[in-house]
Amino acid sequence: MSPRAVCLLSGGMDSAVTLAEARAAGFACHALTFDYGQRHRPELEAAARVARALGAVEQRVVRVGLDALARSALTGSGEVPKDRPEGEIGRDLPPTYVPARNTVFLALALAWAESLGARDLFYGANAVDFSGYPDCRPEFVEAFERLARVATGAGGGAGFRVHAPLLRLGKADIVRRAAELDVDLALTHTCYDPVARGGVTLACGRCDACRLRLAGFREAGRRDPLSYAR
Amino acid sequence: MSPRAVCLLSGGMDSAVTLAEARAAGFACHALTFDYGQRHRPELEAAARVARALGAVEQRVVRVGLDALARSALTGSGEVPKDRPEGEIGRDLPPTYVPARNTVFLALALAWAESLGARDLFYGANAVDFSGYPDCRPEFVEAFERLARVATGAGGGAGFRVHAPLLRLGKADIVRRAAELDVDLALTHTCYDPVARGGVTLACGRCDACRLRLAGFREAGRRDPLSYAR
Repeated sequence: MSPRAVCLLSGGMDSAVTLAEARAAGFACHALTFDYGQRHRPELEAAARVARALGAVEQRVVRVGLDALARSALTGSGEVPKDRPEGEIGRDLPPTYVPARNTVFLALALAWAESLGARDLFYGANAVDFSGYPDCRPEFVEAFERLARVATGAGGGAGFRVHAPLLRLGKADIVRRAAELDVDLALTHTCYDPVARGGVTLACGRCDACRLRLAGFREAGRRDPLSYAR
Repeated sequence: MSPRAVCLLSGGMDSAVTLAEARAAGFACHALTFDYGQRHRPELEAAARVARALGAVEQRVVRVGLDALARSALTGSGEVPKDRPEGEIGRDLPPTYVPARNTVFLALALAWAESLGARDLFYGANAVDFSGYPDCRPEFVEAFERLARVATGAGGGAGFRVHAPLLRLGKADIVRRAAELDVDLALTHTCYDPVARGGVTLACGRCDACRLRLAGFREAGRRDPLSYAR
């Protein structure tokens, strides 16, 4: 029987490729998606599509009232920045940062993992072409792994591993890795501020998330299959 | 202006005394209570009473879908143990352990603290007369504090402190400390498996939580003001 892993799955490109990495490493994947009141709701549908396409054993969508506590442009406080020069993205903490979001998500993943008897968590952080979020850095991943080992019960604790296979990849590397692993990036959703037009959801093309994604495709010499409002 | 602190408040005796310690230390306290599908719902009402009585600046009750992920007798999987000899309590991991519960709660407290500009978290763990939960031990508190310092944004991260003022106290010490700090323990709720009788809620007196509480009062030479089914 394959060992079990809990995989955080947002519906974006990074977590989709991370799930594919976990599958390629031989894990039976339990995908975990959060409804935390994010304004970019289409990512929830994307997560369900990706979980099915990549053969997750199951996917759960769990509600967590982070929007009642965390001040962020992604949960309704303030505007999503648009058209920032690429060189500026990641240099400081943007208003789309959701305080402690990945700590909360990994904590809930840990709860599920311990209940399932899984010892492996997968998480799509990357610290190269990223938005400057502190909870995407290697020192965060290491600190969470140390915490997981003392936070949990009888015997299990010692063995927890937090895998972040994309941690040191740039967006172009992730686009290439998706192709190698047969991940259809048309299923994913990245945009922080999607536009509904004529019954379809279009990516804005102007928020930091869209700009990093588009730059990754450009650098990899591939075409992004998503539709953009501009 | 007083510095702000986020205080985890379950409605039990330990978190009430912890909130009083935070107030006595001069903090403006933002009390945080979780609805995680716990079977002992009366603790939610107790938390609201305690927050008011102890002068919290505000209290929030946040829903977190831990019951969808964590297997525990407190969230509906299996029976709450009764009448265990006191010497047995805390020796192994009981079925009332909720996997990663305190990791999840502290992560959400961290999200709120960072949003409020607070740098202090208070948490009522104690590792002496306790139920054997791994996330109540000093090494867990230290690991979470280290994590908080790398998980959070610009400048703030370095300063986070996780206070667990009851960590090394026994239950009798906590009963005495409550009296010193004028905490009315009649407002609190401890029982894992409360009994409704004639419109009032009675503590069972037989679960591990009741037994530890009663032993604490007995050792401190005081009478517990709560009503017990037996």
